[in-house]
Amino acid sequence: MATAVPPDLGRPPAEVDRLLRGLNASAVEGESWLALFGDALSPQSRDWLIERRRTLAEAAPLPPVAERLRLVRAELARQGVDGFVLPRTDQYGSEYLPPGEERLAWLTGFTGSAGQAIILSERAAIFVDGRYTVQAGQEVDEDLFETVHLVDHPPARWLEEALAEGQAVGYDPALHTKAGIERLKKAAARRGAVLKPLADDPIDAVWAGRPPAPIAPIALLDEARAGESSAAKRARIAAEVVKEGADRLLVTAADGIAWLLNVRGADIPFNPLTLSHLLLDADGRARWFVDPAKLPPSLVLDDAVEPLPPSALAPTLDGLGGARVLVDPARVHAVFAERLEAAGATLVAADDPIVPAKAIKNPVEVQGARDAQARDGVALCRFLAWLDANAPSDGLDEIEAAARLETFRAGHPLFRGPSFPTISAHGPNAALPHYRTNPASNRALTDGVYLVDSGAQYPDGTTDVTRTVAIGTSEPDATRCFTLVLKGHVALARQRFPTGTTGGQLDALARMALWGAGLDFDHGTGHGIGSYLCVHEGPQRIAKSGGGVALKPGMIVSNEPGYYRAGAFGIRIENLLLVTEDSHDGDERPMLGFETLTLAPIDRRLIDAALLDPGEQGWLDAYHARVLRELGPCLEGADAAWLAAACRPLAA
Amino acid sequence: MATAVPPDLGRPPAEVDRLLRGLNASAVEGESWLALFGDALSPQSRDWLIERRRTLAEAAPLPPVAERLRLVRAELARQGVDGFVLPRTDQYGSEYLPPGEERLAWLTGFTGSAGQAIILSERAAIFVDGRYTVQAGQEVDEDLFETVHLVDHPPARWLEEALAEGQAVGYDPALHTKAGIERLKKAAARRGAVLKPLADDPIDAVWAGRPPAPIAPIALLDEARAGESSAAKRARIAAEVVKEGADRLLVTAADGIAWLLNVRGADIPFNPLTLSHLLLDADGRARWFVDPAKLPPSLVLDDAVEPLPPSALAPTLDGLGGARVLVDPARVHAVFAERLEAAGATLVAADDPIVPAKAIKNPVEVQGARDAQARDGVALCRFLAWLDANAPSDGLDEIEAAARLETFRAGHPLFRGPSFPTISAHGPNAALPHYRTNPASNRALTDGVYLVDSGAQYPDGTTDVTRTVAIGTSEPDATRCFTLVLKGHVALARQRFPTGTTGGQLDALARMALWGAGLDFDHGTGHGIGSYLCVHEGPQRIAKSGGGVALKPGMIVSNEPGYYRAGAFGIRIENLLLVTEDSHDGDERPMLGFETLTLAPIDRRLIDAALLDPGEQGWLDAYHARVLRELGPCLEGADAAWLAAACRPLAA
Repeated sequence: MATAVPPDLGRPPAEVDRLLRGLNASAVEGESWLALFGDALSPQSRDWLIERRRTLAEAAPLPPVAERLRLVRAELARQGVDGFVLPRTDQYGSEYLPPGEERLAWLTGFTGSAGQAIILSERAAIFVDGRYTVQAGQEVDEDLFETVHLVDHPPARWLEEALAEGQAVGYDPALHTKAGIERLKKAAARRGAVLKPLADDPIDAVWAGRPPAPIAPIALLDEARAGESSAAKRARIAAEVVKEGADRLLVTAADGIAWLLNVRGADIPFNPLTLSHLLLDADGRARWFVDPAKLPPSLVLDDAVEPLPPSALAPTLDGLGGARVLVDPARVHAVFAERLEAAGATLVAADDPIVPAKAIKNPVEVQGARDAQARDGVALCRFLAWLDANAPSDGLDEIEAAARLETFRAGHPLFRGPSFPTISAHGPNAALPHYRTNPASNRALTDGVYLVDSGAQYPDGTTDVTRTVAIGTSEPDATRCFTLVLKGHVALARQRFPTGTTGGQLDALARMALWGAGLDFDHGTGHGIGSYLCVHEGPQRIAKSGGGVALKPGMIVSNEPGYYRAGAFGIRIENLLLVTEDSHDGDERPMLGFETLTLAPIDRRLIDAALLDPGEQGWLDAYHARVLRELGPCLEGADAAWLAAACRPLAA
Repeated sequence: MATAVPPDLGRPPAEVDRLLRGLNASAVEGESWLALFGDALSPQSRDWLIERRRTLAEAAPLPPVAERLRLVRAELARQGVDGFVLPRTDQYGSEYLPPGEERLAWLTGFTGSAGQAIILSERAAIFVDGRYTVQAGQEVDEDLFETVHLVDHPPARWLEEALAEGQAVGYDPALHTKAGIERLKKAAARRGAVLKPLADDPIDAVWAGRPPAPIAPIALLDEARAGESSAAKRARIAAEVVKEGADRLLVTAADGIAWLLNVRGADIPFNPLTLSHLLLDADGRARWFVDPAKLPPSLVLDDAVEPLPPSALAPTLDGLGGARVLVDPARVHAVFAERLEAAGATLVAADDPIVPAKAIKNPVEVQGARDAQARDGVALCRFLAWLDANAPSDGLDEIEAAARLETFRAGHPLFRGPSFPTISAHGPNAALPHYRTNPASNRALTDGVYLVDSGAQYPDGTTDVTRTVAIGTSEPDATRCFTLVLKGHVALARQRFPTGTTGGQLDALARMALWGAGLDFDHGTGHGIGSYLCVHEGPQRIAKSGGGVALKPGMIVSNEPGYYRAGAFGIRIENLLLVTEDSHDGDERPMLGFETLTLAPIDRRLIDAALLDPGEQGWLDAYHARVLRELGPCLEGADAAWLAAACRPLAA
């Protein structure tokens, strides 16, 4: 039983509980959340709130999966449909989901980061890609769900095969883009069946104790950190909207809103975002549909940004008849596009202009990235020195190592949390490129190759770095493979290229050496990254396909070729690169190049110098000299000695 | 005055004259055309036909361009439109046109290979790309036509700016794809104007003495050369058509029909093609709409190929109501698609399945390509040896050199003509990548760099090779640039890559070294090539963009990086590559690689060996050793000595 709400909170008990439940559904850490209750809390009220929040966090037990599936089927029957299509996403298209949006996990038990389910009356299937087939096999009851390969046997085809004429399959239009649902509609139509939008999500309807939408405090990002005011950003994005022939922009992507308003939140893990919607007008004014509970009383917004409750979004869209609203069909989910069309608005389908603007870091963000990378490199070097001194040893395993690394990072006051779940992988575990360390698979760090892919959020930048290091005696062929990966990494890092070149054009540079040996890796070479935002950010990428956007000065992109030998070991070398103007005497064209931002030694023990040409050796030696020069002054004692040894020239 | 038609021709005089005029509009050479009149001609009839053909070849003088433009405008007024859009193409989408399809040259005087015109009542414009702005300036009267850059200021934009509300602009639907005309329609609609298909081409209506459609004899290509019977090809293409959900395929591309039926013609220069249309049924039967005059009496077609006169095409399409016809929207012009739709046929829009099938050479074609390249290499080596012995010298110029090269090729009985107009370019002329040697620009072969890009048609293969050689003392920086181009050529030639890799992914390999020096080249790195067909053939290519098709074993693609310094010199090194399976011990994936088909020395005098790494030097030495081994036995005396010297190892 809760005691009475302390009088100095000045809110009704139900509202206090709503906030605390929302906080429990968020990723907020520490005690910063107390700011939501004002600056003048009494110590008694603080204690009361902390205790009440803990009480509310106790989750009700879940019924078994078979029962959950039965409940959903009954709800589908009630809504008059024969099935339901469930992607793993939310209405914002987030990569990381708050707990109340984890419908796929609730329904199937599958906890991976990508997947989809289709339920019919007699059959149900879960679709996962190659990364997750093993995990799905462990987590999902095969008597209830068939596990299907997402790429080899896509949901549209499965649906076409499974449906009977006259059937109707429901979907939640808040969870699908129009293009995505169109594919399924076509597949169903070939069997004389239809897809039907459902006004009430059938999972939400039967999920007892479903966590509410997260509520975490929103903070402004100083213009001194952001490098540009929200007003200036809104003005130039509004100009792009007008250029596309529209007079409004609807934004649902959380990182787009965070960038545009210079705000950060903690609604979801790893990404410092708040979930909300925004409507930008042609004059740069914005209506921001955001839970007012997330706005600390101390927060002062720009006059031209009007906060409105989320419930105001639907009537606002309904009132946009006659407006020309730019809606990015690849980002904004069908429910909004359909509502606007029903209201009589004209949809202008175009790429969200925030995406390319956000990708090009301004000078303040660029300097912030350099500072953040150096700070992060110091923590990583301390970890690597500690690892060298302690592994192999009894009891040291992947989980312990990942925790240690986070401890080294957390030592800095600007650390704001990891930017994604650390991959701490030894031996065969590292052969799974998207391995997530977990107690069942946890390996001791004995002789062999160890891969650690991790990153952090700092208020001046987001980091993402992978190092692969030898522990004791490593696998005989690992040195050759590591050196081939390194050759690709270096080829990309040192390449100059003319303006207009896309990441797709450069991808092969990172693979040439591996290809020569009959090897390759099955993931992209590089992704964009945000400034104290998402660790994966478009539009640029370096990949075999889909890397069609020209690289521009100020973009940051990762350089992470790898090699994975199933059952044996995995290798990846990842630095972040800043695209820079790179003109030399004698150039006939405007040229670009890369500045490597990430600072940490690349393990010399895994390099076969005989496989490197003089240019590659020169790059590596110069990189190590720079790492030593920039990080050396920040390290002491054994750490400094370790760094000096790790950074000595190859020939030494 | 013609004398009476000899009685053994057995044809009315008008039909004989039609054939002879058609022959004059074709590219047929020698006396093979006499076969169209049967095998049993008397010597008197032969002489009569040759003389009569010559008489009919005398062209009537053309009125001046201003008068031609006036005539067309009057015709447009008569047809009730305010303008006309004229591309440079024919209804088959050919790269080389027969004279009666040279409407753009007739209207404007511009003779380049790519361009477009728009005529309005008061204004007219010709659109050409960067290759042709100088030439258009020389050939086109600027008082009559504005010269506009095709890429910087596309016709659709020009049209949008120039049109007034309510205007109608005509087009000939036989000369545009639906997608192409759609773009123009949208642009016009933004001004409240329309595009209107014209039943009669207004140029043809007023072009007095317009040459008729070409008539050149058709010959079968032996299955021993083609490697697969027409029946077998038709069966597998028909299966692809059915797989796409269609029951017919309409083919208008001349090289597609030539491949499918194993026939070759001489209707147009450089490409051994006959212009016709074809309708393939799901059972592999074909209706071939071809002028019967082109079929020599001796030619025996497969029973399942029914020749019909071209006039039968329209009524046949009209009778396809209810059929599902596969029509490649990128290839088949609007006139056919619209006719089929009007007839009640369903159009199945898909890529023409002949294109990828034709691109993969069968084992007989592959061996033919090797034989043709070796034969061609011998002729090229004789030419290069002759050039070394004779240049620089008085009176030797680009035109003379090109003629000599053709003479060396024509010495072989299997030579069937050049595969494209030879680019014979000295000094600054070579800096124009698409330079065409002509009397006005012709340069003497004095000290400097000389570039020769040429190819031949042989019944077993088509060749395309570029060599750049030093004459006397070359430009100081040419050696560095040549070596950078060579590094790119070698990087591509020796790269292995996994199955599924596209040409677009490999393009950067040919540019890396140039990019490193701030240089680049503004054309694709490689194009596909036919087997005794077109020198430019899809779908594969190696280029910055549009190289999206995976390379497959049996495809042939050129490897032709270059470098062009305006006003100074041009460099290109081009060999043809065969895509091959290339598996080695230790490979973890199915790998592909390239076999260089072209055999001719790469000029050692232009190589700075200090810029090559050991792998590149090794490739070049091995290539030269192979050239010497394969071509040496075919050369004698001074030529053999020249080859041995040209092929000695770099270090020697």
